[in-house]
Amino acid sequence: MAYVDFDKTGAFKKLSALPNKGKDFSALLTAERVKASKVPAGGGLTYSWAAKGVEKAELDALQALADEQDLIGKYKALLNGEVINTGENRKVLHQLLRGQLGSPVIHEGKDLGKFYAQELERFSTFAELVQTGKIKGTTGKNFTTVVQIGIGGSDLGPRALYLALENWAAKEGKSFLKAKFISNVDPDDASQVAASVSLEETLFVLVSKSGTTQETLSNELFVKEKLKKAGLDPSKHVVAVTSETSPLARNPAYLDSFYIDDFIGGRYSATSGVGGVILSLAFGPAAFKELLSGAHEADKLALEPNILKNAALLDALIGVWERNFLGFPYTAILPYSQALSRFPAHLQQLDMESNGKRVNRDGVPVHYSTGPVVFGEPGTNGQHSFYQLLHQGTDAIPLQFVGFTESQRGDDVTVEGSVSQTKLKANLAAQIVAFAKGKSDTNGNKNFPGGRPSSLIYGKRLTPAALGALLAHYENKVMFQGFVWNLNSFDQEGVQLGKVLTKKVLSGNSGDAALDAYSEILGV
Amino acid sequence: MAYVDFDKTGAFKKLSALPNKGKDFSALLTAERVKASKVPAGGGLTYSWAAKGVEKAELDALQALADEQDLIGKYKALLNGEVINTGENRKVLHQLLRGQLGSPVIHEGKDLGKFYAQELERFSTFAELVQTGKIKGTTGKNFTTVVQIGIGGSDLGPRALYLALENWAAKEGKSFLKAKFISNVDPDDASQVAASVSLEETLFVLVSKSGTTQETLSNELFVKEKLKKAGLDPSKHVVAVTSETSPLARNPAYLDSFYIDDFIGGRYSATSGVGGVILSLAFGPAAFKELLSGAHEADKLALEPNILKNAALLDALIGVWERNFLGFPYTAILPYSQALSRFPAHLQQLDMESNGKRVNRDGVPVHYSTGPVVFGEPGTNGQHSFYQLLHQGTDAIPLQFVGFTESQRGDDVTVEGSVSQTKLKANLAAQIVAFAKGKSDTNGNKNFPGGRPSSLIYGKRLTPAALGALLAHYENKVMFQGFVWNLNSFDQEGVQLGKVLTKKVLSGNSGDAALDAYSEILGV
Repeated sequence: MAYVDFDKTGAFKKLSALPNKGKDFSALLTAERVKASKVPAGGGLTYSWAAKGVEKAELDALQALADEQDLIGKYKALLNGEVINTGENRKVLHQLLRGQLGSPVIHEGKDLGKFYAQELERFSTFAELVQTGKIKGTTGKNFTTVVQIGIGGSDLGPRALYLALENWAAKEGKSFLKAKFISNVDPDDASQVAASVSLEETLFVLVSKSGTTQETLSNELFVKEKLKKAGLDPSKHVVAVTSETSPLARNPAYLDSFYIDDFIGGRYSATSGVGGVILSLAFGPAAFKELLSGAHEADKLALEPNILKNAALLDALIGVWERNFLGFPYTAILPYSQALSRFPAHLQQLDMESNGKRVNRDGVPVHYSTGPVVFGEPGTNGQHSFYQLLHQGTDAIPLQFVGFTESQRGDDVTVEGSVSQTKLKANLAAQIVAFAKGKSDTNGNKNFPGGRPSSLIYGKRLTPAALGALLAHYENKVMFQGFVWNLNSFDQEGVQLGKVLTKKVLSGNSGDAALDAYSEILGV
Repeated sequence: MAYVDFDKTGAFKKLSALPNKGKDFSALLTAERVKASKVPAGGGLTYSWAAKGVEKAELDALQALADEQDLIGKYKALLNGEVINTGENRKVLHQLLRGQLGSPVIHEGKDLGKFYAQELERFSTFAELVQTGKIKGTTGKNFTTVVQIGIGGSDLGPRALYLALENWAAKEGKSFLKAKFISNVDPDDASQVAASVSLEETLFVLVSKSGTTQETLSNELFVKEKLKKAGLDPSKHVVAVTSETSPLARNPAYLDSFYIDDFIGGRYSATSGVGGVILSLAFGPAAFKELLSGAHEADKLALEPNILKNAALLDALIGVWERNFLGFPYTAILPYSQALSRFPAHLQQLDMESNGKRVNRDGVPVHYSTGPVVFGEPGTNGQHSFYQLLHQGTDAIPLQFVGFTESQRGDDVTVEGSVSQTKLKANLAAQIVAFAKGKSDTNGNKNFPGGRPSSLIYGKRLTPAALGALLAHYENKVMFQGFVWNLNSFDQEGVQLGKVLTKKVLSGNSGDAALDAYSEILGV
């Protein structure tokens, strides 16, 4: 497999040479194009790229790029267990959590697909025992609340998915335990959550792959002290999700432990026990398995070499076009679904931590832009906030919309002839067209330049399967972009320096006078 | 008063001609500089600009810019009631909510400072009557929960401030009513909140200046139907915050109405009844008045013409330097305080809706960059998420840190020799220095280029006064930047086109075939 810097490819030259970059594509956006320009994305979702400024010339060049960089070949190598995370010498196996797509991945004599499936069954059984009251807390009361203690990938993904399904579960009668989250080392976070729950009815899920994360271990101790003060036995109230080699594994201090391994990166771990334990406790193991099946379907669709039939690949390539040839340094995620309120924060980590890199997979600096800044909030809320800049700012920003035909709770009200869900969708459709086409006005203040490109992922209803596919779509998109840019999308060396300096500060010997001065003004 | 486009000023030319733009300023960052480079920001806060890449030459040129564009003169004109919001022909008076700094502002014979003070007293009294059980719901039970119904500025600011003070109030014994928020027209939002409260003990605050906001009126009806179904009288459970000319004013359908006027823009309304009613109900009127006094102090400090003694002005000018001369298209807000979890979302609206404009205050297109994209999440959470890109992405991003010496709840745990609050602060100090100085490493993957500029606003503890000052600091910063760029920072014409198209879709006659095609695939 050849790994080549993006600017060394023939496709890069071809894309650079394309005329009409930044041309106003708004006239392109016809009803026919809307009807034709869409691809299935799994879980009942569809990816629509009609409002993106690409035509045959761009799409042909992007197909040539996909072929030349062998994006599908690299994806297959990843699925087959090649060491794709070169910096850390690790395989990358989060897709395997959702099902087998390549050959069996054997590591040190262990079939990892089977291992992941077995852990899934273990925590599914555990969740059922908790839900049916067969596993109880110290005082014999049933667990009613689950609190996840974790940070980064152990927090953002699971939290986003929990919020995304809370209303679905309420409607479907699948609400079991209520979930809360403790992440920040700010002691107010743990203190507030601990004070808001009935400790004797609360099960804590401690998530740290290495078992050494500073924030998580501090919060673990915080919670254990609260449990002890309440006369409860922490070993009956805490389960661990960790690797088998961590100090948390097979440790009698925990009610049970569920395992992942080094091949599941933090930001890709939502479909492992990291997300699975809490989601199975909250909504039942069947719902979590539906989420996995939606993700698996998206993973399978991502194997298609024709970019017009592969939603994640096409989304990735259009993003590369916008980043490297149209020069956009950011992209906004705009879900028209309140349930997806924290999904942009998860995608922010997923994308920026994966592809926010300035060296290639061999550690050599690259000479082109890589991962963009990702931000977003749900619509219609964002319309009353930062959309002003999106419509009329001095720079255009590519937009990624998400929307659903039906609400999750099916509880609605008719005002002025339409229900709220219809208003929500009408706003979404209107925004796509407003951004693309703009509106000229002789009053400059009321003039909309248009030409703001957007995509749309849509489906019938935000179910576990749709959510799983949505998650996997973005994971696979980021993976393909990393392959195009020849990055290692699966390490995060950029988080190390801060950790090292923090330890020095805490040890009382920072070795830097400016750092000491900051510590002083902050009262460290 | 002369209003001149930025690129027509002498200061613009001078700034453009400065050498060493983008120079590596990391060697600047000494202990002496950290100790010297700070300015009081009100409410006990201090603004530190030590880790910003500006020296005497840049600061002198920025002072000249402040003088030439008469930024303080324009601020004074605003305080004195001049029509600064030219597009809508309106005064801009949110600072007057916090106290009188200019001459009395008389409009149609009414002293608006007195009017605002009187409304403050009216809702303070109302909050006390509710808290003491003198105003009750239909069934005679005390109100225990307040739910705000509003969107945009009627949601983001009040919500951010509520979350910011929840733990402070718990510690100080100032927790009165619990607050929740309904914003999105997505019916799942209202349905979920309504299902989560005891309706007979819930007071709703309906916030819409015009009384015509689609989302808010839909959610009002949603909630009223729930109240009626529960056998409750909506007129005893809903108060309105609106303008005196709106259909919601002096309307027997509401328990009471509190007033703002057209001179309080939505995103600047958190210190009016828009934020004040719910915050006074939640934490008591005294806490809200402390917040106002902190904001007033910051407003007063912002009158200082010397940029090295005016935190908001200096912050604004350094931001202009970074946006227009170093070319940064974004800025990140990174509060090391979980209580400020939604403060970046409020600042995102404040900044992007105010200065995301491509025409000057007269509607003429400008030829320079204006407001940046603003995003952010609390630290340390962000460290485990998007900081990878901030440290090692291909583009630098200016950073705005916020931190406090003490936690709000004072409930902490010692792990490995330090409490969590100390770890939080050590992380913050370490990040500032890591971003500025980087670390060279022969392994490209472990190399940190540094040169990432940041500012820090710090204080002893996040109290109402500190929070008020923090809010006003950013409002004033955005105002000064708008003056530099010669924008009208106080209208939002960019939200109109989407509204118009949405209405057309809902009326069944969009007039655009592509829009109809989108409506069709979304099932509108």
